[in-house]
Amino acid sequence: MKTTVTFYAAHALCLVLGVACVVLVAHWNASYRGGFAWDGEAQQFNWHPVLMVVGLVVLYGNAAVVYRIPLTWRVSKQPWKLVHAGLLLLALIFSVLGLCAVFDFHNTNHIPNLYSLHSWVGILTVGLFAAQWAVGIGTFLLPCTPLAIRAFVKPAHVWLGGIVLVLSVVSCISGINEKLFFVLKDKANGTVPYSQLPPEAVVANSLGIIIVAFGLVVLKILSNKTWKRPEPRNEEGGYRQVSVEES
Amino acid sequence: MKTTVTFYAAHALCLVLGVACVVLVAHWNASYRGGFAWDGEAQQFNWHPVLMVVGLVVLYGNAAVVYRIPLTWRVSKQPWKLVHAGLLLLALIFSVLGLCAVFDFHNTNHIPNLYSLHSWVGILTVGLFAAQWAVGIGTFLLPCTPLAIRAFVKPAHVWLGGIVLVLSVVSCISGINEKLFFVLKDKANGTVPYSQLPPEAVVANSLGIIIVAFGLVVLKILSNKTWKRPEPRNEEGGYRQVSVEES
Repeated sequence: MKTTVTFYAAHALCLVLGVACVVLVAHWNASYRGGFAWDGEAQQFNWHPVLMVVGLVVLYGNAAVVYRIPLTWRVSKQPWKLVHAGLLLLALIFSVLGLCAVFDFHNTNHIPNLYSLHSWVGILTVGLFAAQWAVGIGTFLLPCTPLAIRAFVKPAHVWLGGIVLVLSVVSCISGINEKLFFVLKDKANGTVPYSQLPPEAVVANSLGIIIVAFGLVVLKILSNKTWKRPEPRNEEGGYRQVSVEES
Repeated sequence: MKTTVTFYAAHALCLVLGVACVVLVAHWNASYRGGFAWDGEAQQFNWHPVLMVVGLVVLYGNAAVVYRIPLTWRVSKQPWKLVHAGLLLLALIFSVLGLCAVFDFHNTNHIPNLYSLHSWVGILTVGLFAAQWAVGIGTFLLPCTPLAIRAFVKPAHVWLGGIVLVLSVVSCISGINEKLFFVLKDKANGTVPYSQLPPEAVVANSLGIIIVAFGLVVLKILSNKTWKRPEPRNEEGGYRQVSVEES
């Protein structure tokens, strides 16, 4: 009972931090960066941080903890697999759109792609995420996949799931930091420099810290053994007997 | 036996990647950034990335996996506790010196401290690391600490140990990215811009990717249950009986 209450406290924190991430990244780009468009100009770039934070961090993190919710333990795993895979597909679509926003912006403005360390880590993150999603679908949702393969892949799937979140946080922090140095240069371009911490810098730095906090809460939820969905079992033990295909 | 061989392969990879981090960060700053000094100029700043990568990533990561080395399992844990705490003390000293290098450089050149997101995450990382080290010494090395307190603190100590490494990687990647945008601006300051990926950018980007790889290998070693030091036990089981104080 105490474990369940602690879980829901952690899950509530995860949800609150996730909402804070979405609000802050939207507020930063809407109020300080000129809003959104898809016209090859700076307002198109602004979709990049919003889509990456919403997809690669918030949706991804919430999808990762779905199986930890005790309410889902007493029912069949199959619909929750679809929720997990569906949320991750949405996260992947947001991430790919976020990449399209920046690639198209770069191409329109003759700026090279994929030269910064942020972009190297970022593209590695999305590539790993896409591979993980495809292998996950093939392994855990296709009915024809042998159970032995599922059991073999599962530990790597769980571990890599956490690692993709870590890499997402690395990508977001380096990207927000880079963007602020780009746009808050000095009085010459009409902005207060980053080094004087204008309100925009405080908002975006706070977004970065909240992204880190969200990532740590999700990793903490994933690491807690008592919050793992119990494995199916045949003995009388409080959980209904589920078919092995569901494991 | 197979598990042991796999561990030593992972450990060898960890050592090789650690050496590569040290070589690359030293090479970057010695060959492309003008070398080292402690005179308040740019050459003093160059100590910052070197000391942070060596301390907060390489020494820290190697200290974290000490208990996983099977060779250490059949002997008393006490000397390995001292190795663990000693390596981490060295890592902490390197990190604090790395902070001194940048704070002193900023103060000499009238640059504000702690305004960037990189610096916010970085100072949080070193602060957490210092607190973790102090609590670790008080809990696991002071003989007067009750065993119940050790048992209570240990899971949090192990979890936070991994998290500090994650935050170290976040700090390093955002810092390397920021530095390259600072120094590889355009032809006006005599450098090839970052966007054209000059050799310095390739070296420092590669350093970033190797730091990420090192961090992932350490996290993988820490997460593998079969590589954990067996708990002391009284039954005949191949391990000598150790006193509870050693656990």
